[in-house]
Amino acid sequence: MALVVQKFGGTSVADPDRIRAVADHIARTRRRGDEVVVVVSAMGKETDELLHLAGQVSRTRPGREMDMLITAGERKATALLCMALHDLGVPADSFTGSQAGFVTDVNHTNAKVLEVRPDRVREAMEAGRVPVVAGSQGVSSDRDVTFLGRGGSDTTAVVLAKVLAADACELYTDVSGVFTADPRIVPAARRMSRVSFDELLEMCACGCPKPAMRAVEAARTHNVVLHVRSAFTWEPGTWVTQEDADMEQVIVTGVVPDDSEAKVTVSGVPDRPGIAATLFRRLADLDVNVDMIVQNVSDHGSTDISFTIPHPDLERALEAMAEMSADIGATGVSSDHDVARVSLVGAGMKSNPGVAATVFETLAAEGVNIEMISTSAIRISCVIREADLERATRALHSAFGLDAV
Amino acid sequence: MALVVQKFGGTSVADPDRIRAVADHIARTRRRGDEVVVVVSAMGKETDELLHLAGQVSRTRPGREMDMLITAGERKATALLCMALHDLGVPADSFTGSQAGFVTDVNHTNAKVLEVRPDRVREAMEAGRVPVVAGSQGVSSDRDVTFLGRGGSDTTAVVLAKVLAADACELYTDVSGVFTADPRIVPAARRMSRVSFDELLEMCACGCPKPAMRAVEAARTHNVVLHVRSAFTWEPGTWVTQEDADMEQVIVTGVVPDDSEAKVTVSGVPDRPGIAATLFRRLADLDVNVDMIVQNVSDHGSTDISFTIPHPDLERALEAMAEMSADIGATGVSSDHDVARVSLVGAGMKSNPGVAATVFETLAAEGVNIEMISTSAIRISCVIREADLERATRALHSAFGLDAV
Repeated sequence: MALVVQKFGGTSVADPDRIRAVADHIARTRRRGDEVVVVVSAMGKETDELLHLAGQVSRTRPGREMDMLITAGERKATALLCMALHDLGVPADSFTGSQAGFVTDVNHTNAKVLEVRPDRVREAMEAGRVPVVAGSQGVSSDRDVTFLGRGGSDTTAVVLAKVLAADACELYTDVSGVFTADPRIVPAARRMSRVSFDELLEMCACGCPKPAMRAVEAARTHNVVLHVRSAFTWEPGTWVTQEDADMEQVIVTGVVPDDSEAKVTVSGVPDRPGIAATLFRRLADLDVNVDMIVQNVSDHGSTDISFTIPHPDLERALEAMAEMSADIGATGVSSDHDVARVSLVGAGMKSNPGVAATVFETLAAEGVNIEMISTSAIRISCVIREADLERATRALHSAFGLDAV
Repeated sequence: MALVVQKFGGTSVADPDRIRAVADHIARTRRRGDEVVVVVSAMGKETDELLHLAGQVSRTRPGREMDMLITAGERKATALLCMALHDLGVPADSFTGSQAGFVTDVNHTNAKVLEVRPDRVREAMEAGRVPVVAGSQGVSSDRDVTFLGRGGSDTTAVVLAKVLAADACELYTDVSGVFTADPRIVPAARRMSRVSFDELLEMCACGCPKPAMRAVEAARTHNVVLHVRSAFTWEPGTWVTQEDADMEQVIVTGVVPDDSEAKVTVSGVPDRPGIAATLFRRLADLDVNVDMIVQNVSDHGSTDISFTIPHPDLERALEAMAEMSADIGATGVSSDHDVARVSLVGAGMKSNPGVAATVFETLAAEGVNIEMISTSAIRISCVIREADLERATRALHSAFGLDAV
C-alpha cells in the first residue's frame, strides 16, 4: 500500500462532470489499495473571474482582501469534490489551507509556506477518510488568510507529500506529461517518461507552463517524486526524479519556446562598478521580474546592458530606466516587443561541449538571427525574432534527435 | 458617537456598483461620527447558484461540505466590500465567521450560534478600522465551517450587536421597511415607522419575507433595536423595538398574505390520546416544517386533523401520512395545493375582542370562503382559496383602516 498525494488542476475540475470523473479516479486509486490525500485548485477559470471581479470593484485591491477573495475558489472546489466522493461511498473531508495546517508568512497574494501542521489531515486518514485540501492557501502568522499565488496548488501538493512522507505526488493537469517541446508547435514532440528536477526547472524557467516552477523547486529540495499526468486520459505521464546515471546518456531533453517577454537595452552605460547593481535594484524595487541579462564586453569605457522581462512589466521598466539613464550617464534606452526565446535543456549537456555549436549552426542554417545568448550548465537560451520562433523550435527539436520516430 | 451594526443583504451587494454604493454609505456613517461594524450576505443570487452547483455535482450533498461551499459566498462579498472601502480611504478588514469568533453547534446547514468571541472585531475597531464580518457563518465545536442557514446574516448582525453592545442594528435590504401589507398586492400599503418585536415575529411567521424570523427572535431575546431600511434609497425605514404603551393604540399592524404552503388533511382519525403526537413526530423526523394545525372536535369517536406545510415538503409528508393512516386506523389522507393564508397581525388585537368577527365579516362580504382558522394573542390567520388571496388581503387592509390616506 502506497500513500499518494493527488493534485488536480483547474481544468481537471472545471465543471460538475469533471469533478465526478476526478472523484471516480480517486475511488479507483483507493480500491487499488493505495491511500490518497487530495489537493484541488479552483474550478476552471474561477481565479481569473475573481480577479476580474476585484478589478471591477476596486482600484487599490489590498492584498489581505484579495487573498480572502481568491481563496474562496479552492474552497468551493474541495467541498464539491468531497460531495462527489460521498456519492461514490468514499468518505472524504474538505480542509481549507488553514485547517490543513499550512502556516505562511504575511506576504499576501504570494505567501510562502513556513510550516505545515497537518494534524487534521492525519486524523482524517487514520479514520479511513480522504482528506481533500484546498490548494495554494494557508493562514499567516497574523492569523489572516493567505494565497500562495498562481500555480500554488502544486506547491501545496509537494509540501504535503513531503510532510506526510508520501510515496509520490501526482500532478494531474490537462496535458499528459512533460514533452520534448510544445506539441502544438512541434508535432513530432515526444512525451518524456522521465525527467530530472534540474532539467524540468530549466524548462520551467524557459516558459514551460506546467508544472509550476516553485513546486518543482520544492520537490527537488525535499526529493519528492513527481508524476505529471493527464486528468483527461488518466494514462501514465512523466516522472520527475533526481538525476541518475541512466539519465545522463540523453544529451538534450527538450526544446522550450517562449514569447512572453520583451527585450530592453540600456546603451552607453559607463563601465563603473555598481552601475548594473543600481539598475537592477531599481527594477527589483518595482517588482519587475528580470529574466535573461546580457552585458557585452566594455568598449571605450562604456557598455550596453540588455535584459528580458515579461511584456506586462515593460512600461514601468522603461519609465524607470529612462529616469535612471540620465543619472548614470547612459546614452539611451530602447525596447523590442517582437523578440522570443528558444531554449535547449538537458542534463547531459554539461559533459558535451559541442551542443552550443550545434545550436548556433542549426539556427544559422534556418536563417534565424541570434540576438542574445545565455547559458547555464544544462541549458542554452537564444533570443531571436518572434516570427522565427516556431521554425527555430522545430529545427532544434529535429537536430538533436528528439523527433518521434 | 453611536456604535451601529450595519447588515447588507444579497441584493444590496449584488454587483460591483452596488458594493461601491454600500462602501460609500459606510464611509458617510463614519464621517457622521458613528462607529460601524458591518455584516454582509453573499452577492445577489450567489447562494442559489452554489446550491444549484452542488445539485449538479452530488446527490448526497453532505452538510459539512455544503457549509464549506455555501460560506464561500459571504467571504467573497466581505473581501470585495473591504476593497471598495480601502478605495475610499476607509481602513477595513474582512473576517470570516470563524475569525469573528462565531462558535456554533455541529448542526450543519442550519447551525446555531453558541458563543461569540469577537476579539479580532474589537481589535480592528480599536485600531480605527471597520470590521466587515461574513454573515451566516461560524466554526463548530468540531472546528468545522458551519452555515447558519438562509437569512442567517440577519442573525449574525443581531448577535454581534448584542455582544458589542451596539446602539442599533441596521438591516439594509431591497425594501424600505416593514409594510402594513405587501405593496405589490395592496397598493395602499403603508410603511410602518415602528413595530414591536412580537408583531414583527407574527408577521414573519405568516410569510413576511424580511427580516429573517430567527433574527427577530434573537433581537427580542437580547433587546437589540432593529432598523429595517433600504440600501437603495437609504431613507429611514422601520424601527423594531419592544412594545410600549403608545403602540397598543394601533389595533392591527399589518396584513400578511402567504401562498407558499399546501394543506394536508388526515380524515377519520380515532380520537385517542397520543395519535396526534404520533403523526407530528413522524413529520418532525422527516424534517417537515408543519405550520398551522387544526383539529376539529371529535364526532362519534373520530376526528379530522388538517395542517399546512411548505409546498416542497408535500410529497414526503403525504407518503408518510399514507403509511401511517392504516396503522392508526384513519380513513384517509387528502391534500390541497391551491390554498393560501391571509393573516392579520397587531399587538392591540388581544384587548379588542371584535377583531376576529370583523375579519370573518369582511371575508364573507368579499365572498371568500374560510377553510381553516388559527389564532394567537396578536394574530388571526385564515386558510382560503389561493385565487382569493389578493382580494382578501386588500379587503382586510382596507377594513382595518390601514390604507394610506
